Amino acid sequence: MLEKMFNPNSVAVIGASRTKGKVGRAVLENLMQNSELKVIPINPNVDEILGLPCYPNIIDVPGEAKADLAVIVVPAKMVPGSIDECGQAGVENVIVISAGFKEAGVEGARLERECISLCEQYGMKMIGPNCLGIIDTASGLNASFAANVAYEGNIALMSQSGAICTVTLDWAERIGAGFSKFISLGNKAVLAENEFLQLFENDPSTAVIAAYLEGVKDGPEFIKIAQRVSRSKPIIIVKSGRTSVGSRAVSSHTGTLAGSDAAYNAGFKQGGVIRADSLEEMLDYSRAFSVCPLPEGRNIAIITNAGGLGILTADACYNAGLSIASFEENTIERLREKLPAAANFYDPVDVLGDAGADLYEHALDVVLEDINVNGAIVLVSPQSMTDVPGIAEKVAEKIKKSKKPILCNFAGGSRIAAGEDVLNSYGIPNYSSSERAVASMNALCNYYTIKNRKQEQPEKLSSDTEFARSFINRASSEKRRTHGLESMDILKAYDIPVVDSRIAKTLPEAIKAAEGMGYPVVMKILSPDISHKTDVGGIRLNLKHADDVERAYNSMMSDVRHYMPEAAVTGVQLQKMIGGGKEVIIGMDRDPQFGPLLMFGLGGTYVEFLKDVSFAVAPITVAEAKHMVSSIKTYPLIAGVRGETASDIDSIVQTLLKVSQLVTDFPEILEFEINPLMVMPEGEGCVAMDIRFTLES
Amino acid sequence: MLEKMFNPNSVAVIGASRTKGKVGRAVLENLMQNSELKVIPINPNVDEILGLPCYPNIIDVPGEAKADLAVIVVPAKMVPGSIDECGQAGVENVIVISAGFKEAGVEGARLERECISLCEQYGMKMIGPNCLGIIDTASGLNASFAANVAYEGNIALMSQSGAICTVTLDWAERIGAGFSKFISLGNKAVLAENEFLQLFENDPSTAVIAAYLEGVKDGPEFIKIAQRVSRSKPIIIVKSGRTSVGSRAVSSHTGTLAGSDAAYNAGFKQGGVIRADSLEEMLDYSRAFSVCPLPEGRNIAIITNAGGLGILTADACYNAGLSIASFEENTIERLREKLPAAANFYDPVDVLGDAGADLYEHALDVVLEDINVNGAIVLVSPQSMTDVPGIAEKVAEKIKKSKKPILCNFAGGSRIAAGEDVLNSYGIPNYSSSERAVASMNALCNYYTIKNRKQEQPEKLSSDTEFARSFINRASSEKRRTHGLESMDILKAYDIPVVDSRIAKTLPEAIKAAEGMGYPVVMKILSPDISHKTDVGGIRLNLKHADDVERAYNSMMSDVRHYMPEAAVTGVQLQKMIGGGKEVIIGMDRDPQFGPLLMFGLGGTYVEFLKDVSFAVAPITVAEAKHMVSSIKTYPLIAGVRGETASDIDSIVQTLLKVSQLVTDFPEILEFEINPLMVMPEGEGCVAMDIRFTLES
Repeated sequence: MLEKMFNPNSVAVIGASRTKGKVGRAVLENLMQNSELKVIPINPNVDEILGLPCYPNIIDVPGEAKADLAVIVVPAKMVPGSIDECGQAGVENVIVISAGFKEAGVEGARLERECISLCEQYGMKMIGPNCLGIIDTASGLNASFAANVAYEGNIALMSQSGAICTVTLDWAERIGAGFSKFISLGNKAVLAENEFLQLFENDPSTAVIAAYLEGVKDGPEFIKIAQRVSRSKPIIIVKSGRTSVGSRAVSSHTGTLAGSDAAYNAGFKQGGVIRADSLEEMLDYSRAFSVCPLPEGRNIAIITNAGGLGILTADACYNAGLSIASFEENTIERLREKLPAAANFYDPVDVLGDAGADLYEHALDVVLEDINVNGAIVLVSPQSMTDVPGIAEKVAEKIKKSKKPILCNFAGGSRIAAGEDVLNSYGIPNYSSSERAVASMNALCNYYTIKNRKQEQPEKLSSDTEFARSFINRASSEKRRTHGLESMDILKAYDIPVVDSRIAKTLPEAIKAAEGMGYPVVMKILSPDISHKTDVGGIRLNLKHADDVERAYNSMMSDVRHYMPEAAVTGVQLQKMIGGGKEVIIGMDRDPQFGPLLMFGLGGTYVEFLKDVSFAVAPITVAEAKHMVSSIKTYPLIAGVRGETASDIDSIVQTLLKVSQLVTDFPEILEFEINPLMVMPEGEGCVAMDIRFTLES
Repeated sequence: MLEKMFNPNSVAVIGASRTKGKVGRAVLENLMQNSELKVIPINPNVDEILGLPCYPNIIDVPGEAKADLAVIVVPAKMVPGSIDECGQAGVENVIVISAGFKEAGVEGARLERECISLCEQYGMKMIGPNCLGIIDTASGLNASFAANVAYEGNIALMSQSGAICTVTLDWAERIGAGFSKFISLGNKAVLAENEFLQLFENDPSTAVIAAYLEGVKDGPEFIKIAQRVSRSKPIIIVKSGRTSVGSRAVSSHTGTLAGSDAAYNAGFKQGGVIRADSLEEMLDYSRAFSVCPLPEGRNIAIITNAGGLGILTADACYNAGLSIASFEENTIERLREKLPAAANFYDPVDVLGDAGADLYEHALDVVLEDINVNGAIVLVSPQSMTDVPGIAEKVAEKIKKSKKPILCNFAGGSRIAAGEDVLNSYGIPNYSSSERAVASMNALCNYYTIKNRKQEQPEKLSSDTEFARSFINRASSEKRRTHGLESMDILKAYDIPVVDSRIAKTLPEAIKAAEGMGYPVVMKILSPDISHKTDVGGIRLNLKHADDVERAYNSMMSDVRHYMPEAAVTGVQLQKMIGGGKEVIIGMDRDPQFGPLLMFGLGGTYVEFLKDVSFAVAPITVAEAKHMVSSIKTYPLIAGVRGETASDIDSIVQTLLKVSQLVTDFPEILEFEINPLMVMPEGEGCVAMDIRFTLES
């Protein structure tokens, strides 16, 4: 559908200019690099630019079909008019390069909304505003004002920052890295990452998808699309504004509303996206994917002519969770055949300082044939005897043919430059440090897992939604937004076990309730005004007989009156005391970008300051629920470590799935928490002890 | 004392060669670059090399003083003979470049020991064997076979890997980075890092000390020297073999016995060393120190012409623990005066894409004058209007004059090359990513703290060493090496509070002991064969009367017989039950490189799998003891978080100091542990509940 945007027969430049240094001239010149393309300058003040006939208006262009694509570079306030004219002229695709929109304040935002309406009215597709333009090396289109040359390649890149487009193109030009499509997203008023992910998915010239994003426009849709696309092509994203400082900077930059970083981490993970921590990492990973097959495991062979570099690389592998390979006997024997006696025949293989290209070739051949090796890292230091370009040549040939990934780190400066040139001529990256090569190898390994993960969709759980609906409606009709203990029964609609509990408004009622359920019991204050019950003495544990209940009731009432004299108290709740379990928390917050963000963690004091919690965007699959539970650091405590019995993890997983269904069914629930969920030993289930949720007002 | 090694008047090359490509020729040529140096080739087979008269033997060199320095490049087995001749000829300094020593196996190790003896016999200093040689750019000495040019600079570098020397020189040559002294350490048979740290300390041409090490030769001495040196010059070390995989590779590389990584971390920290995680980091940090003054705080201003880069850099600052500066009103006003209206006047300052050198200059001047700014990071993207070399020129001038550190990231490739050239000509580093610039700024900030830390020496605590000595002697006389509960009294010699406990050999004795100390009590099995008492039912808590003691005694005996029928049981220990405290652990292991390594952590299950412990090499100072306690992640739990009372941290600190003294006084204690130490609420002290230690056999 975006075919004509990236492979047009004719392109109009609205705001074309004769003046060198002006954007309207730079765009024109870039387009004219492709002699087969019909380029139409639009400018009311001149008749001709760079030998092309110039028209005052797109409507005045002769013929029925005016242009497949219009690139707009006029000042912001004139942009809506130009778009309107494009619409009238039947132009279906526009790129708005001009700045001065949402990123520039209130008036800009109004102009941007106007552009969006016009696009909707005419059914037009728009990239930008506030962007650098686009490049398609396969079709030969350069509809940008970029000053750099873009080489052909298989990496599709989109960036929400025009300057980062420039930086990337400049970096790529120096080392000869290439791109299939290059898109400056700008303010993403109409077209955004989701549309382009789908474009790249079906683009035969794209093998790798890379992006710099400051936010995503539609989180839930993004996850769905990324899940599908990541099965065929790796998606590598650097998302800035990770921290609160960065987020503030983001909103002043492109006016993007930044969601929480935890939500991005969760959403990217669920979508199969590889998150890079920096621009450098994104580019490093992209280049590894652009040339390497995927490793089927995490066992890496290192070949080096410098012991020290080998050790540093082994350290880096270990830190990244990669293993140093254990070679077969036969591999070691074959290495011994040609390598000098003082060489190291175990991983890392040290071919010694005077090794030539033939020894590197032999060592690479031998280790790659070993069934225990999934990939290799080649390290070359420029020692006095080292034939750097010769080794580069051999290694490059291997990389091109190998069925296992090979990455290299020619380490140094002056004397490795010739080797880098050789690698560049093959389109092969040289990593300037072994740590960078290792990080990229790790990305390849991780993507192998992503690509081959089980296809699973969240299942719709059966529930008594009618009961839940009536419950929510009743709660909504109350004035307060936050609901607690008294609303525990909503969990029953989703078959989540709830502790036996009864409400009592007076002391006699409390004693009666306790006797009815059997001792020991727990007493909790019931008040819409009290959120942290412990802080005001609002919880009493382990009450063993009527006397205990009486003493607890009286002192609780007096404590609460003391600490929170204004709190309205509606009574107390008695719960059956549950022993022998472990407390966990299941929660949900609505993220502005991704919607319902589920949280799981251990209960108690530790969770608060260890921040040891896991997240996922609902609705979740069984695998995602399991992962939420197993990915917290304190998982061994519930899985059972020395002296601890194993908890019923399956019941936690089931409860997560049920909460996921509940918050998906009722978008009016803004926040939700079961705290604690008491998890019993394996096979004995779990039970919700208290809840808290907030409804939309 | 090493003066003549690095600034000799005459140098002999033993094993000098005419043949191009041979090490003996390369060394000769490098030495001859300095026309003022008297170079003397030694080779029995020729009379002259490269126009210099050649002698068969160093002894045959005419004159009284033969040479200030001899560089030996003959095969390993001939090296001891050559050293012996040097000794006879009165040569005081030798560099052995030849390989084939400790790193090559048993025979090599024997040869190396022979060289060491000869050096001791003649009082000679030796660098190597198995090294690349040394370079001193101030004196003009190049006594190495390095093929690269070494530029003058203020960074002194030593490396345990010759190949890493080569990589570093090659890297430096490409970008024009310079060194004061460059030392390939080789096998460190005689001279090692400790001697060179002291040399660099007093070297007027050295401002920054950098090292690649695979181990240190004398850990305790290293800490002492580094503590002193790091007060005047930064010491940046990359230590490889961090992981078990890497450590194995280290020992096969230079035959270094790798101590534990935890000990290196602790020793480096105590020595004021900045530990780099990679070669790249070491070089990045070194270059920042080589040009920048130190920042007096962690508030960083970012100046950028690209919003996206600014956000990524703000994220990186936050992750590194640096703050984005809050500008004074006046700063913002002054920025507004010259910057365009659409610019961002808050940190990160966005001067916009078309900014010229003058705007960068203005912005830098203004933010650096702000009292809230301690340092600046300048980001430059090559946009179409950007005068890259012009900006580089202005920024370089500022960096040279500024009293606050400025680091830069000219981001891109082709079009920033001209900017990099300008920076290189000023000796100023360009960081290829903002993350690398931020990491280096963080290193500058950290060193400011190190340089200004309080001078403190471990205090010798008074103790009843006589009592402790008799105790240790008695324990040593027993056959077993491991001692436990029954030896608690050794703590009393160091004034460490010990729980009231009594030993009982029979049930009646046990009841009598319990009645004597008062209920409730804890009962523990006493057996030299049982180390994990809990696993065999060897601990019973909260015994409240004689009946409890009887039941516990009988079932414990039966349990222990069941689980460990062969264990010799000498009785039980009764301890006063202590409630209301928190369990912590204080331990010590002897590290092969650093000696007594103290450990501190919380007790209980968490500590086992969170690995949340801190380390320091004994003897420790009060500040170090405090840091051990406060640096664990679970520190809030003992400091007091919501719902938790604060523990008596001072009593933990005192106990750490006492244990530090104990293990320093008695090197025959190989392992030591108080587990648990029960810490009471603030002001109420702590008490040791159980110990375990192992003596040298």
